[in-house]
Amino acid sequence: MSFSASSPVSFVRAAVDGEIARFLDRRRAQLLEVGSELVPVADALEAMLAGGKRLRPAFCYWGWRGAGGADVAGIHAAAASLEFLQACALIHDDVIDNSDTRRGLPATHKRLESLHAASGWTGSAEAFGRGAAILIGDLCLAWSEDLYQASGLGPEALQTGRVPFDAMRTEVMAGQYLDMLEQVREDGGVEATLRVMHYKAAKYTVQRPLHLGAALAGRYDDLAPVYTDYGLPLGVAFQLRDDILGVFGDPEQTGKPAGDDLREGKRTLIVAETLERTGSADRAEFLRHLGDPLLSAETVEWMRGAAEDCGALAACERRIDDYVAQATAALETGRIDATARSALADLVVAATARKH
Amino acid sequence: MSFSASSPVSFVRAAVDGEIARFLDRRRAQLLEVGSELVPVADALEAMLAGGKRLRPAFCYWGWRGAGGADVAGIHAAAASLEFLQACALIHDDVIDNSDTRRGLPATHKRLESLHAASGWTGSAEAFGRGAAILIGDLCLAWSEDLYQASGLGPEALQTGRVPFDAMRTEVMAGQYLDMLEQVREDGGVEATLRVMHYKAAKYTVQRPLHLGAALAGRYDDLAPVYTDYGLPLGVAFQLRDDILGVFGDPEQTGKPAGDDLREGKRTLIVAETLERTGSADRAEFLRHLGDPLLSAETVEWMRGAAEDCGALAACERRIDDYVAQATAALETGRIDATARSALADLVVAATARKH
Repeated sequence: MSFSASSPVSFVRAAVDGEIARFLDRRRAQLLEVGSELVPVADALEAMLAGGKRLRPAFCYWGWRGAGGADVAGIHAAAASLEFLQACALIHDDVIDNSDTRRGLPATHKRLESLHAASGWTGSAEAFGRGAAILIGDLCLAWSEDLYQASGLGPEALQTGRVPFDAMRTEVMAGQYLDMLEQVREDGGVEATLRVMHYKAAKYTVQRPLHLGAALAGRYDDLAPVYTDYGLPLGVAFQLRDDILGVFGDPEQTGKPAGDDLREGKRTLIVAETLERTGSADRAEFLRHLGDPLLSAETVEWMRGAAEDCGALAACERRIDDYVAQATAALETGRIDATARSALADLVVAATARKH
Repeated sequence: MSFSASSPVSFVRAAVDGEIARFLDRRRAQLLEVGSELVPVADALEAMLAGGKRLRPAFCYWGWRGAGGADVAGIHAAAASLEFLQACALIHDDVIDNSDTRRGLPATHKRLESLHAASGWTGSAEAFGRGAAILIGDLCLAWSEDLYQASGLGPEALQTGRVPFDAMRTEVMAGQYLDMLEQVREDGGVEATLRVMHYKAAKYTVQRPLHLGAALAGRYDDLAPVYTDYGLPLGVAFQLRDDILGVFGDPEQTGKPAGDDLREGKRTLIVAETLERTGSADRAEFLRHLGDPLLSAETVEWMRGAAEDCGALAACERRIDDYVAQATAALETGRIDATARSALADLVVAATARKH
């Protein structure tokens, strides 16, 4: 997903980036007090935090603004704390999935594996990389809390904010576990896939960050239901758009090879829909190719055709349209600040529009 | 280390256990709202939290009492939060070290690996167990914060307490990284080993929990230096006693096979001292056996003899005596409440006394 320079995400991005950079500077100094051997750890953290769309901070920020909160440094810092939670999730996810790259760069465990190899140390470089990445992810999770609590917002506001803050973390980890489970159970039906999306995408990426913003502004009770009605469908729609891009996206635009999600074997909703809609012969062939790392361009083309011909693509697009309508309608209710309402409406479009 | 029923650890143990149980009950309900598939996750968490000496909570509690704090539920909950941090450290440590057991039971990743195998799921049971354990450790880390912030102590006190709380987590993760590094660099000298002990044992187990107690009671500024003078030597002495038990301990008493640390190849201080003190022939033989999982009783006996004959054991015992004297002397300074001072003096003895 990309946003124009004037989008509601880029509006808050510089401030969030600044908070992240300042916080990382202080933490680098703390790590180096322990020893100069921690430099690669600090470097890996900085590289990880440099990337990312800052989507969760944007929803947190606009959730706060929607509740009448002012554009102050405290909310930038509290919002930025969500990027450290996300960094933990990604670093650990890459270890769990054994994924070598993240945003076109080596995954954290691969970085540390290379350090081991280049340093001529003993033992398994792979095990070292994995272990170090587990610890670096832990640091990100701990630091997410530290930045949140040190944001400068009042102790009472922070305490109120902990309701969605705590729920968000438990839900994303439970969602990750469900996701792992769906992979090994090879259930992967439409309903099971939607449940994982509900926790990993809808609640974690959109609803809870909005709730956090509202709670920090002291308006959790009256705004949480509205933000739920807006956030849950938007989160699923956003994930669906990403899933469609993972199968049909143009490499020029996604920065990933064509059909990358098929090659990785991701059990996304479009895959689940395809498997439920195709005949048994095509289903068997589709399953045989799914997750093949050496998938040819021709086979990607065949799989795209299968997803299109059986109506899976159209069903996903219809779902996006429905969810977008629901999210947009939700904004009409509730006492949301006018500037924020307009930003939240723009976010629906930016997160779910077809990419060409 | 074992404590008698009237020890300063058992004094607070029931209250800490109660806080952990109540918190886990609430969180189990939250996990089951996500789905009944989370039952094994909740069970694994409960099993992990059922064990443990509650040593860090005890130091936190007595740090608070030493600062004049009363025996209230809030400090029990804040102290109990440290057990969740420790649970994360152990669960992730077992993944990193690929250790199959913890306190005589299957390690968390082995529990979940068995679940995979018993359920007939697809893919690697080992990878599933490892991935699930990473997520379960993450839950423990997040929940440690939640329990701390929900302890019921005032927001101002909790905010003050975050200075040692935050430092403690960064330090233990940095210490774990240094520990991994020492293993692969095969440096393992006395100084390098002492540095890892400084972070993983002295600061994490004793000093920072005491600091936390003092900070929560509003007396961080005047008591932190005293608790440092007491806690750092005590923490190293405690770890040294554990290390000596890991080589010379009686299986009846430790619950582990004789010479278990030698079989695991742990680079403890007594090993470092032995390697620095023995001649090159013995050193080579000692290194050849170190970490051999099939070590015979005879070889364990020979390695014990080597550690004793070269003076490594005596050097470690001398260090314990020195550190015990330093820790005890530190209690004489500073305005520590009399009951707590006596408890802290008892903790020195309990944590470092020779076991027979």
